[in-house]
Amino acid sequence: MKTVPVGVSARHIHLSAAHIEILFGKGYQLTSLKDLSQPGQYAANETVAIEGAKGKFDKVRILGPARGASQIEVSRTDAFSLGIHPPVRESGNIEGTPGLKVIGPQGEVELDKGVIVAARHIHFHTSDAAKWGIQDKQLLRVKLKGERPLIFEDVVARVSDQYALDMHIDTDEGNAAGVKTGDLAEILD
Amino acid sequence: MKTVPVGVSARHIHLSAAHIEILFGKGYQLTSLKDLSQPGQYAANETVAIEGAKGKFDKVRILGPARGASQIEVSRTDAFSLGIHPPVRESGNIEGTPGLKVIGPQGEVELDKGVIVAARHIHFHTSDAAKWGIQDKQLLRVKLKGERPLIFEDVVARVSDQYALDMHIDTDEGNAAGVKTGDLAEILD
Repeated sequence: MKTVPVGVSARHIHLSAAHIEILFGKGYQLTSLKDLSQPGQYAANETVAIEGAKGKFDKVRILGPARGASQIEVSRTDAFSLGIHPPVRESGNIEGTPGLKVIGPQGEVELDKGVIVAARHIHFHTSDAAKWGIQDKQLLRVKLKGERPLIFEDVVARVSDQYALDMHIDTDEGNAAGVKTGDLAEILD
Repeated sequence: MKTVPVGVSARHIHLSAAHIEILFGKGYQLTSLKDLSQPGQYAANETVAIEGAKGKFDKVRILGPARGASQIEVSRTDAFSLGIHPPVRESGNIEGTPGLKVIGPQGEVELDKGVIVAARHIHFHTSDAAKWGIQDKQLLRVKLKGERPLIFEDVVARVSDQYALDMHIDTDEGNAAGVKTGDLAEILD
């Protein structure tokens, strides 16, 4: 059985170094609250507010380290509350997406793009993928056996020797299945 | 192909006649904003606020007519915001569920039970069920082909000559699949 731990991602933001300076002050460096499942990635102690036409969320967690471009990942439910209509996209693919206002303790940034609903995916270390015969970008069917069992289709495989085995879904998907971070999913095919 | 229209239910409340009087005043009668898919059921013009330990929602739609017992149906996402932990249940099965404060224009009611996350289900008219060989309470597998395709397992069939064909899911499930009311689902088996 091909079993994978599940990580349910709440809304969060990745920031460019330039935006960190505007929001937190010149030369500011993010500090790590805890390590994430993917090597080198961490949840920062720092948070920001995000504001759309219809609503605002305070205390949105920043994930570090800094990236080339700022990106905000929200659930569809969050998007309705904010009053925006982001597409379902893979991380990093932000051309043509809507923006939002980001508010930090020292300043604000009006993003003109960068908000996505993250496409569900599984990170595989190269060795896991080889063992199970899975290719990078392959679409998988995956069963979550929570309180409300669901089979997810079109789950994107992402394979790298920099990755650790983990399935990433958002809070809508986690709540629809009744699963939480650390529960197990089964790859069907 | 066994095709069924989908209805995505936002948070809502059913009220007993006694609670309608406390919330809206003696002798008050709900008024219909629009008919729902099930015969005799309607969304009322009237709304109430609901309040839990951690949060509050204003303008929660009342569905009429009055029922024997008050019942509140929320998504798991809503439940986290409210700070309560309702079980997934079929409508009407509210023993042992948490309550909430309900606030109307003329009064308040502190429910000691009645909050559920509604178990996904399909209403079948007796003639649809007979045509497709489906029994009352049968558990079905159903595919939703939205932006993020999902197969729902353990979908409860509810068969009556009082029902119209409709699949009911909540906003977490609708958003996880990327479907909206009026989209079509396919019963697989």
